[in-house]
Amino acid sequence: MSLVIDVHGHYTTAPAALGAWRDLQIAGLKDQSKAPQASALKISDDDIRETIEANQLKLMKQRGSDLTIFSPRASFMAHHIGDFETSSTWAAICNELCYRVSQLFPEHFIPAAMLPQSPGVDPKTCIPELVKCVEQYGNVGINLNPDPSGGHWTSPPLSDRHWYPIYEKMVEYDIPAMIHVSTSCNACFHTTGAHYLNADTTAFMQCLTSDLFKDFPTLKFLIPHGGGAVPYHWGRFRGLAQELKKPLLQEHLLKNIFFDTCVYHQPGIDLLTTVIPVDNILFASEMIGAVRGVDPETGFNYDDTKRYIEASKILTPRQKHQVYEGNARRVFTRLDATLKKRGQ
Amino acid sequence: MSLVIDVHGHYTTAPAALGAWRDLQIAGLKDQSKAPQASALKISDDDIRETIEANQLKLMKQRGSDLTIFSPRASFMAHHIGDFETSSTWAAICNELCYRVSQLFPEHFIPAAMLPQSPGVDPKTCIPELVKCVEQYGNVGINLNPDPSGGHWTSPPLSDRHWYPIYEKMVEYDIPAMIHVSTSCNACFHTTGAHYLNADTTAFMQCLTSDLFKDFPTLKFLIPHGGGAVPYHWGRFRGLAQELKKPLLQEHLLKNIFFDTCVYHQPGIDLLTTVIPVDNILFASEMIGAVRGVDPETGFNYDDTKRYIEASKILTPRQKHQVYEGNARRVFTRLDATLKKRGQ
Repeated sequence: MSLVIDVHGHYTTAPAALGAWRDLQIAGLKDQSKAPQASALKISDDDIRETIEANQLKLMKQRGSDLTIFSPRASFMAHHIGDFETSSTWAAICNELCYRVSQLFPEHFIPAAMLPQSPGVDPKTCIPELVKCVEQYGNVGINLNPDPSGGHWTSPPLSDRHWYPIYEKMVEYDIPAMIHVSTSCNACFHTTGAHYLNADTTAFMQCLTSDLFKDFPTLKFLIPHGGGAVPYHWGRFRGLAQELKKPLLQEHLLKNIFFDTCVYHQPGIDLLTTVIPVDNILFASEMIGAVRGVDPETGFNYDDTKRYIEASKILTPRQKHQVYEGNARRVFTRLDATLKKRGQ
Repeated sequence: MSLVIDVHGHYTTAPAALGAWRDLQIAGLKDQSKAPQASALKISDDDIRETIEANQLKLMKQRGSDLTIFSPRASFMAHHIGDFETSSTWAAICNELCYRVSQLFPEHFIPAAMLPQSPGVDPKTCIPELVKCVEQYGNVGINLNPDPSGGHWTSPPLSDRHWYPIYEKMVEYDIPAMIHVSTSCNACFHTTGAHYLNADTTAFMQCLTSDLFKDFPTLKFLIPHGGGAVPYHWGRFRGLAQELKKPLLQEHLLKNIFFDTCVYHQPGIDLLTTVIPVDNILFASEMIGAVRGVDPETGFNYDDTKRYIEASKILTPRQKHQVYEGNARRVFTRLDATLKKRGQ
């Protein structure tokens, strides 16, 4: 039986206790007496079940997707808040929750980890959390924030050796990273309307100008939100690579870079599937996420991206299967291994 | 006779003396003794003729465009360098050169002005240069840099009252602004591959979240590079506007925001013309600009955007005329007035 795998879901509907705990943690940065212990957060299995069954799982069943790669809420990562300890405690809590979701609904959710990044802090400090998430929690990928400052872009580009400790571990485990920023605290950038898309474009271009994938031939990046501006400007990027005397993008980047289908209208999906090789496109919806409404032009939710794939006249049925399942299993090899163990 | 008007051209081929003068100006910021007088720059009419005839004008004739709205080289604006005086002298020199181009080739070039912006400096300081360019040089538009810091995004969003002095003057003269950043001095952002496109998306979203066009119902922004990521993510932006309880984008933004056709492949242009109303699309190539090569997939230059419009099966001949001429004359009313005076 074939599967529909959504490679981009966040736990945006976590119980309110999580947000309340985070508020206290943030208050504790100014007034140490308010700082909560991690153990003060009480979320029961029933709390989790309720938030998942009434939301993501309900919509997955309605829309016909089977399994979601599930990570902590992206906008809540907020790596710019506090220091490494702040992020470390917060990431541990959020990753544990996604792990618990995956244990309660093993057929429907498999976790990907947020990292305890903090601006100006060596990324190698993220390794212990990453190791725990892969080895103990069965995470099949990570979310890597190229801008832990939250819209000030104070870290080096992704091609810089600064990031290599993370890449070394990714390669060792053969896990991909979704390159995903968090909340913008720069008033110029709306978080989901500008910062997310800008980061996607920026990350792609950082890879294009570099030889990162010569150093890490098996490193895999998933660029979310349909690759930001990249597919729409594919001619521009092909031309820029040519000016920079880089190989063709297919050779230079597309063995290592993949795009998801979080593009919320048919013409966008059609463009994506026209210009990007089908091997590099992974089904995703980022549901329940930034855009929750019903499109008055279609009568369906903007983020019901499966409808656009289904309606595609560009993709063959075989290619749709690739987008839904085959590519996800090829890119997320630990997901594939888990599914195979279950006989799927 | 109908015209093909390219609304986005920069004087990227200015005589080498210009760059040499700028280098001295920059050196003078550290060592006052090196600072050149503006009058030290000597560029003859023949120098200008040569750089235009061998480059932009040659390609315009080859490709079949008639008239270019011509502004100083965007990446050379570099408003982050020095202070207001630095930018003021530099803008005056660059604008004078574009004016001279328009005087030497009045049928083919009409100027748009760069502004002497400087990070942290009140935009109203730009007004005298703007007034001179419109009243004495016949400029039909301006280029407004939403991030004079060059990739650090330290200015308020375009919806902030900070920018209102410029808008008041724009409305008074009925001139549009192309929202165009300059060189990135943030290592994260490649100038033409990331910063330009990010700025386009950012500017659009700054307008979307605000009620700027309620304060200035006749203000007009041209968002270049096909609107950055906007048309590709049109569903996302429609959905975000809906979440924010804003009117439909057509009503909320499209009386005031226009997109150019600097998208360097056919599928991108097809997407643009599919989702954006034809009234809001203005022909442009940004030639000679960031992407100068020949696309091996077509055998023609990436930035020969007229070919994509010509090949479009989405636009009718009447709509192509709108994109080539009608919309430009409607948005750039001073261009229209100039052409009418000439009997065009």
